[in-house]
Amino acid sequence: MGMSLDSCVTILQYSLRVVQVVAAVLCLVAAGAISYVEAAVQYYDWTVAYTYASPDCVEKLVMAVNGEVPGPRIDATEGDTIVVNLTNHLPTEGVVIHWHGMHQVGTPYYDGTASVSQCTINSGETFTYTFIVDRAGTYFWHGHFAMQRTAGLYGSIIVQLPDSQKEQFYYDDEASILLSDWWHKSIYEQQLGLDSIPFRFVGEPQSLLIEGRGKYNCALDPGSNGASPSCLPCNASNPECAYHVIPVEHGKTYRLRIASITSLSSLNFVLEGHNLTVVTIDGRYIEPVVVENLDIYSGQSYSVLFTADQDQSRNYWAGINVRGRLPNTTTGLAVLQYLPNSTDLQLPPSKPPGSPAWDDFDYSLAQARLYKVKPGYEKPVPQSAGRTLILLNTQNKINGHIKWAINNVSFVFPPTPFLAAFKLKLKNAFSPIAPPDLPPNKPDFNIFALPNPNDPSEINANFGSSPYVFKLGETVDVIVQNANTLNPNNSEIHPWHLHGHDFWILGYGKGKFDPANDPQSFNLADPPLRNTVAVFPYGWVAIRFVATNPGVWPFHCHIESHFYMGMGVIFAEGIHKLPSLPTETLGCGLTKPRH
Amino acid sequence: MGMSLDSCVTILQYSLRVVQVVAAVLCLVAAGAISYVEAAVQYYDWTVAYTYASPDCVEKLVMAVNGEVPGPRIDATEGDTIVVNLTNHLPTEGVVIHWHGMHQVGTPYYDGTASVSQCTINSGETFTYTFIVDRAGTYFWHGHFAMQRTAGLYGSIIVQLPDSQKEQFYYDDEASILLSDWWHKSIYEQQLGLDSIPFRFVGEPQSLLIEGRGKYNCALDPGSNGASPSCLPCNASNPECAYHVIPVEHGKTYRLRIASITSLSSLNFVLEGHNLTVVTIDGRYIEPVVVENLDIYSGQSYSVLFTADQDQSRNYWAGINVRGRLPNTTTGLAVLQYLPNSTDLQLPPSKPPGSPAWDDFDYSLAQARLYKVKPGYEKPVPQSAGRTLILLNTQNKINGHIKWAINNVSFVFPPTPFLAAFKLKLKNAFSPIAPPDLPPNKPDFNIFALPNPNDPSEINANFGSSPYVFKLGETVDVIVQNANTLNPNNSEIHPWHLHGHDFWILGYGKGKFDPANDPQSFNLADPPLRNTVAVFPYGWVAIRFVATNPGVWPFHCHIESHFYMGMGVIFAEGIHKLPSLPTETLGCGLTKPRH
Repeated sequence: MGMSLDSCVTILQYSLRVVQVVAAVLCLVAAGAISYVEAAVQYYDWTVAYTYASPDCVEKLVMAVNGEVPGPRIDATEGDTIVVNLTNHLPTEGVVIHWHGMHQVGTPYYDGTASVSQCTINSGETFTYTFIVDRAGTYFWHGHFAMQRTAGLYGSIIVQLPDSQKEQFYYDDEASILLSDWWHKSIYEQQLGLDSIPFRFVGEPQSLLIEGRGKYNCALDPGSNGASPSCLPCNASNPECAYHVIPVEHGKTYRLRIASITSLSSLNFVLEGHNLTVVTIDGRYIEPVVVENLDIYSGQSYSVLFTADQDQSRNYWAGINVRGRLPNTTTGLAVLQYLPNSTDLQLPPSKPPGSPAWDDFDYSLAQARLYKVKPGYEKPVPQSAGRTLILLNTQNKINGHIKWAINNVSFVFPPTPFLAAFKLKLKNAFSPIAPPDLPPNKPDFNIFALPNPNDPSEINANFGSSPYVFKLGETVDVIVQNANTLNPNNSEIHPWHLHGHDFWILGYGKGKFDPANDPQSFNLADPPLRNTVAVFPYGWVAIRFVATNPGVWPFHCHIESHFYMGMGVIFAEGIHKLPSLPTETLGCGLTKPRH
Repeated sequence: MGMSLDSCVTILQYSLRVVQVVAAVLCLVAAGAISYVEAAVQYYDWTVAYTYASPDCVEKLVMAVNGEVPGPRIDATEGDTIVVNLTNHLPTEGVVIHWHGMHQVGTPYYDGTASVSQCTINSGETFTYTFIVDRAGTYFWHGHFAMQRTAGLYGSIIVQLPDSQKEQFYYDDEASILLSDWWHKSIYEQQLGLDSIPFRFVGEPQSLLIEGRGKYNCALDPGSNGASPSCLPCNASNPECAYHVIPVEHGKTYRLRIASITSLSSLNFVLEGHNLTVVTIDGRYIEPVVVENLDIYSGQSYSVLFTADQDQSRNYWAGINVRGRLPNTTTGLAVLQYLPNSTDLQLPPSKPPGSPAWDDFDYSLAQARLYKVKPGYEKPVPQSAGRTLILLNTQNKINGHIKWAINNVSFVFPPTPFLAAFKLKLKNAFSPIAPPDLPPNKPDFNIFALPNPNDPSEINANFGSSPYVFKLGETVDVIVQNANTLNPNNSEIHPWHLHGHDFWILGYGKGKFDPANDPQSFNLADPPLRNTVAVFPYGWVAIRFVATNPGVWPFHCHIESHFYMGMGVIFAEGIHKLPSLPTETLGCGLTKPRH
């Protein structure tokens, strides 16, 4: 292959794209959406491939970028343009990468979601993502095709304010940790289990990881052939699974950025001996609140401040514990190291820190309700909505398969991306019948009970993949209603994430949402903004957003197996203003070329 | 999705394609290539997905078609048109299916080879293969994308003569068996091992399967947590791994079709107590020869006749043993059942049958030389060639990775299919520099030694993927020369398979091919025709074919890991006569649409 010509063409393609993005930046600057001062273009060359790694002391295949586990961290400044040339070296799999928390204004085709924003990048291909980091904050990137995220395809995105802007709180230094949960079974096994009759659940994770490191309880797996479900060699002395260390100096104040990319687990974070002052959530300022420990759900991020004011002769644990599910996984640990303690890491003399009872949902709900937007730092919430969706989230059996459904529709991933289907006006890419705004024929639906086998509307869920289409600029309320699963007396936590937007959280409620009365309790004064919100068991959450971002945007449970099993919907807005799609995003499904 | 409209469009698409193929059939009939009498169109709806299966009593994920392991068998009559609607339900992988032994005259885009004949079928897509079974014989289909075949994606194609034609030998009834080898590690683990530094070989198979059934030595894996490399539950009473049974009646003569789809293993087949009369190889008639046991290499097929003339009060083993590699796998077994022995299967009272010593290559060479074309049944071999390639096959380290190379070029699979690159005249799809016809600068190359570290021409292999282009109608000789691997005193068997053609085997030789003298020993009288030939350790083989089939055709080692590691080349001919490509074969690499 003529490398020089090739490179030249590639560079030309980038250049054209960068020009487009720079135009978009200028547009955002003109609109006052971002302040353009030091905005720069950052280039990354990434290759996705499997590698052997031992994040929890047990070797397995990990889907890595440039061989790194977790993948490379992006450090940027608000307003920067990020250009990632992503080459797929997986032998048979397609791949995409989603930039979680990036709003992709003007670049919806770079949102990196399979079936939605682009055709997946085939084995051997290189695809260039070009987008603006439009807001300072703590974010992350991850695979968004079936369950590839669970294979380890994720990393951090840390976005600083421009030098010209002063942070709204004081700290001497900062650190960031990405939290995840970890399985020894491959994603192929996990996916097949979810697809099978009888259903085989992925089960609780073998380990919890902090910044990609944990310690599997090797006692369950003595030597290489023990009695554990993993039956993989376990080597606790492998440096790959050494504790992650957060070094601090006594008396200083730190900003700790905490993000969760877990596949299943809701977590509670504890910094032994130190309270945490929460100052931002999902990149948005809140009125600071002090907590002893921090609930964090998959898809969320926080900045917390703490002062290193404890005994500097010893170190302290940072720990994460499972919330909302009966824990079967030991505490994930990192070490808060008081400098200048010896470079040979001294483990804390204390036991791993505990968290509130896993099923103390009142505790979690109360903490979630603590967060209020910091007055004066965000534009005010619209006082009314033009459209309201009530999304009843149930577990159903469809043709014998256990699935999740929203208003009786279990989402399936179509072969043609929605964005291309809309932009190219393709017929038959998805059903022209819109999904229901309200739970169909279920005024008396009992969210506390098993589905009623005598009520077809409760048991006849079906597969579907048609989007909710909003008017550009419309204010939308969405109530997500949780219910009983197919198991008696069981309801679970679901962290719902919206692409392309942040939303206001107007309220959380227990039990069944009452459209007549519950809106009166909505917080229309200082609701927090974020991109991921937890819906608690047998409860509901009400969010509001303004559909100002032309594109197609999934709204889905961020638990990997749940979206895989259908727990999501598609939102679309500004269809008539969609930008022209880069050729590289096409080629699959109904977007094949006509030669 | 509007199912009825959808179905209608689909049916219309099939119809158009069938019309094209029928035109091709008529063309072949007119050319006398096939006799059109009862030719029919057969439709299949296949879905590729993983399933749980226990082919050797150990449960693992198997890449199945319609949940069957092995996949569905196609039974056809010469001249039939086969239409397979293949839907990909693998969550993240592309897929293709190759129809091994089908010549795809006029339909090179349906040869089903990734990087060569089409873009892989993405997850969720349906692709329709439409082709003619142009010759009676014993064939098979299999995945041809990275190592998906090894995951279990294969099945038989049995093609009968039209009723109007009489077979050239007598038998009362027939049976067929497909032979394979089986690993407990996933193909993802196997592929990564081959790609890694240090290299991790796939190792010897855990089991040998006959018609998809074998028995892993469960004693190595007691319970579910034993000391075996697999550490998977082993259940010898699972009916999925019951012995395959070949029922016979005393006194009758049977045609047994035997095909090998092994990933690694060369095999020797033994039918305890019964000699075998070999009558066809790879669908071609030979002068019948009697053998006590049959060597068979991956990619090959045989029809053998045997008479059930033994003790009908007992049953007999059919067994397969590993050839050419130090065996670490027990004999694969099936049962020859003399009817009417009880329906409760009586196992043979004897030990599993043995085979010649694994390293008795003289035995294998002598047997390979037995086969001569049956006089009068095939057109005569051309007496000279217009072009001769000598392909020196070496093992090399490239950037620290262990690879196979042909004339110092290790094949890599490009993202744009060759067929599209040629037909659409795409620049940069592959290097314009043709690969070398002869081993470069290696007149004194010692095939018995390790590569000479002081000779750059022996150690500087590199990656490449440019094709050999032949004139349409040109007669081509190819000598494949085996050599020492990167291990001292080691050379291996490589079964080379050619797509789109059968070839004459002009001769086998030991040691280094001598272009001045060896051609004088070529068999130009009655060489056998076939599509796969074994190259023995430290030996060579000479083949001849006529490049009459417009298309792009891989010629490669049929060992799955070897082609994955670069052991193959690409042949192309009749570029100016290539048919227009179905849209569905495009969309990847440089064939993305321009909207």
